[in-house]
Amino acid sequence: MNAAMSASKEARFLKSALDERGARTPTEDVRAWLAARNRDVGVRVARTRLSQMRDWALDDATGRIRHASGKFFSIDGIRVATNWGAHPEWAQPIINQPEIGFLGCLAREFDGVLHFLIQAKVEPGNVNCVQLSPTLQATKSNYTRVHHGKSPKHLEWFLDRARARVLLDQLQSEQGARFLHKRNRNVIVEIDEDLPPDPDFAWLTLGQIKHLMADDNLVNMDLRTVVSGIPFGQDDVRREPASFAEAMRASALAGPRALMAFDDLISWFTGQKVRYELQVTPCDLRAIADWELTDDELRHRQGRFFRVIWVDVEISNREVTAWQQPLVEPVGEGLLAFVVKRIHGVHHFLVQAKLECGNFDVLEFAPTVQCITGRYDKPEWNVPFLDYVLNARPDQIRYDVRQSEEGGRFYREQNRNLLVEADESFPVACPENYQWMTLNQLLTFGRFNNYLNIQARSLLSTLRFA
Amino acid sequence: MNAAMSASKEARFLKSALDERGARTPTEDVRAWLAARNRDVGVRVARTRLSQMRDWALDDATGRIRHASGKFFSIDGIRVATNWGAHPEWAQPIINQPEIGFLGCLAREFDGVLHFLIQAKVEPGNVNCVQLSPTLQATKSNYTRVHHGKSPKHLEWFLDRARARVLLDQLQSEQGARFLHKRNRNVIVEIDEDLPPDPDFAWLTLGQIKHLMADDNLVNMDLRTVVSGIPFGQDDVRREPASFAEAMRASALAGPRALMAFDDLISWFTGQKVRYELQVTPCDLRAIADWELTDDELRHRQGRFFRVIWVDVEISNREVTAWQQPLVEPVGEGLLAFVVKRIHGVHHFLVQAKLECGNFDVLEFAPTVQCITGRYDKPEWNVPFLDYVLNARPDQIRYDVRQSEEGGRFYREQNRNLLVEADESFPVACPENYQWMTLNQLLTFGRFNNYLNIQARSLLSTLRFA
Repeated sequence: MNAAMSASKEARFLKSALDERGARTPTEDVRAWLAARNRDVGVRVARTRLSQMRDWALDDATGRIRHASGKFFSIDGIRVATNWGAHPEWAQPIINQPEIGFLGCLAREFDGVLHFLIQAKVEPGNVNCVQLSPTLQATKSNYTRVHHGKSPKHLEWFLDRARARVLLDQLQSEQGARFLHKRNRNVIVEIDEDLPPDPDFAWLTLGQIKHLMADDNLVNMDLRTVVSGIPFGQDDVRREPASFAEAMRASALAGPRALMAFDDLISWFTGQKVRYELQVTPCDLRAIADWELTDDELRHRQGRFFRVIWVDVEISNREVTAWQQPLVEPVGEGLLAFVVKRIHGVHHFLVQAKLECGNFDVLEFAPTVQCITGRYDKPEWNVPFLDYVLNARPDQIRYDVRQSEEGGRFYREQNRNLLVEADESFPVACPENYQWMTLNQLLTFGRFNNYLNIQARSLLSTLRFA
Repeated sequence: MNAAMSASKEARFLKSALDERGARTPTEDVRAWLAARNRDVGVRVARTRLSQMRDWALDDATGRIRHASGKFFSIDGIRVATNWGAHPEWAQPIINQPEIGFLGCLAREFDGVLHFLIQAKVEPGNVNCVQLSPTLQATKSNYTRVHHGKSPKHLEWFLDRARARVLLDQLQSEQGARFLHKRNRNVIVEIDEDLPPDPDFAWLTLGQIKHLMADDNLVNMDLRTVVSGIPFGQDDVRREPASFAEAMRASALAGPRALMAFDDLISWFTGQKVRYELQVTPCDLRAIADWELTDDELRHRQGRFFRVIWVDVEISNREVTAWQQPLVEPVGEGLLAFVVKRIHGVHHFLVQAKLECGNFDVLEFAPTVQCITGRYDKPEWNVPFLDYVLNARPDQIRYDVRQSEEGGRFYREQNRNLLVEADESFPVACPENYQWMTLNQLLTFGRFNNYLNIQARSLLSTLRFA
């Protein structure tokens, strides 16, 4: 795969991930900047009623909630049939957003270190208003200006490829339990030009971004997914890692020492896709027995999973400063956990092949434990490895931070992101829908469409290498 | 990607592709065997009427033609909307076969050379009755015995992975203009056991299979797709190739000398998938204005594209010896052509990102020219590079053979497979939905789901390396 040609790009990403001292803005100043933006940007989000929404309404013919333009997204009903998991059939609302949007970062080298142009961005559903976001975060409706607002800043670098060098450009999926077949274009392009200063933007190294991921809800989902796709090359360093961070770096670079050959992982995943079937058919939201649509909200009758609410939004520094929209509010917190274990001298991640109803291609690679909404600790859920990660000793926990899901669609949704290092006694043998992979193998799959789910990517993005 | 671990597997594939002399059965004997099987296997295929089909009928509620069991496949109607190509909207019948079947080859080493267990198989739509086929060719309905027949021979090696070593195991797509989201599992597993002799099977080297692909319609589509996925490793041999076959081998192994870096190809394809949209919705076959369903056939009113016919089949050596089924009959022959050109000392293939309505993921890599059904030479079709390949000088034509499509679904469908070596004057610059790739790059994409379409794979499978 042109290792020689891409080596320099990958080495530059690794350097940026290791280097916090080479940063233009000290990390503490970044926190101060965010605090200042939180003071300066005016935000108001208030519940409203469906009947008070000017441009959103239930479409009587199809039974879905849509925007008058037919753009942005809609809330649809689906019926699901599958032979995966404990529930062979159900119906649920889902967000249908067939457009592919941009999640784009501008990159630039300063003093020999790659920096990324990060935006302090407010989304209506954010738990803490301003979060660190990619340079550009725009749906097609957004950047083709269906909303008649201003064009998003820096869009031109991503539309006109002749002006910038592409470092990364992947289609990646979003939450399969909430979105129907949703994908975004994750892009990093490098420029050499000076940009005029802008209070909403700052240049950070990759090491700084990863450092800031140690804070709850500071780095938004979109920036985490862009960061998760960054490759670091391949190597066969056999030096003993002095820390967990060095072990992660070795796993990212790990060449031939993986437990399972790459083609054998492909074969395993092929078998999983043949074994499990997923059938999704559209249905009228009003015809879903377990869900109830009122003027206030769309909710599960037993209060489970999530509800859809309608909100009035005002945000002072956006292309359009006031609008209305539906938001999805979870009923509880979720848990995302990877179990990591040293095998043959290299750290491996215990990866689950998981089916979610909105998945583009049946199954994707998920963290060892993924329970999106609450009540995962009830015994009837019987989630493999859940007890292990919840009962890990403090010295096994390598990461434990709350991270937000996308505040443009989800209202104050956060998940506990957990990384647990298994000790010697943890078995290498695992259930048929799990497999141990090095970080390098996971990143190789990540270059292709619809392998790693967003929860797996979110956790991988947080790994520090120094 | 574990180059060291897989090198030996890939080197063994390459050796088998180069070696015809090491073969157990001389290639001429294979031809004689096929001729004998053609004499010995009784085949009768006769047109019938829809009303005479015992288990197939139009489903009045959904307007599709289905088997009483709900298994095998159905003929559905779809409406298509897209911004790709000259036709933004149309409706058509399509084969809906959501099950993933096996296309499997057993492999075994004899005297240090890998051989593949090839079946002489008759399908009702075959133009010449017996064709060389994989060891196992079975839909899920087939191998779960919905038809209450015998279990397919050698199935057990593919179901119980503990008994054999997996050499290849990929999900690959089928014809996107005829099948809705169809995929098959392409598998090669290696065994060490002796198998009892069977008149329907013979062990051939990869070189022999490729040699026999120089004959019209001898190697069936299913074997061509399994062969197309075989990897040969990576190398950077800079020796001047002495022949076109050696140039193909160099392109299969080509390391860093490709025109475009692999990640840049991913970026280009990401851009194509963002740009082009495909919407497919089911519809009643009877509601398609341009198509007419009669007791005799389902046909386009102007006689274009294809028609669906109903047939009585008797084949003496199958698990079930008599049955009825629909078959798709094309109205004309198609053309599949790759333009190949030496760039930076390595041969590159001019690959098209092509949308077809049944594609699983909007676009796949197709040959430079792909016109599935007739009339492609009318000027209004305006197919890029068509004139070039049709007017190539004899010394530019490296391959020109008629190959059949799958005779289990298609009635006597064959396409002209053409490989044209462009000369110096052929421009490297190409339209935005085309890209030059080495064979090694194509094979790397082929390891992942839904990149190379079946027409591209069919052509690549025919390449000889010696």
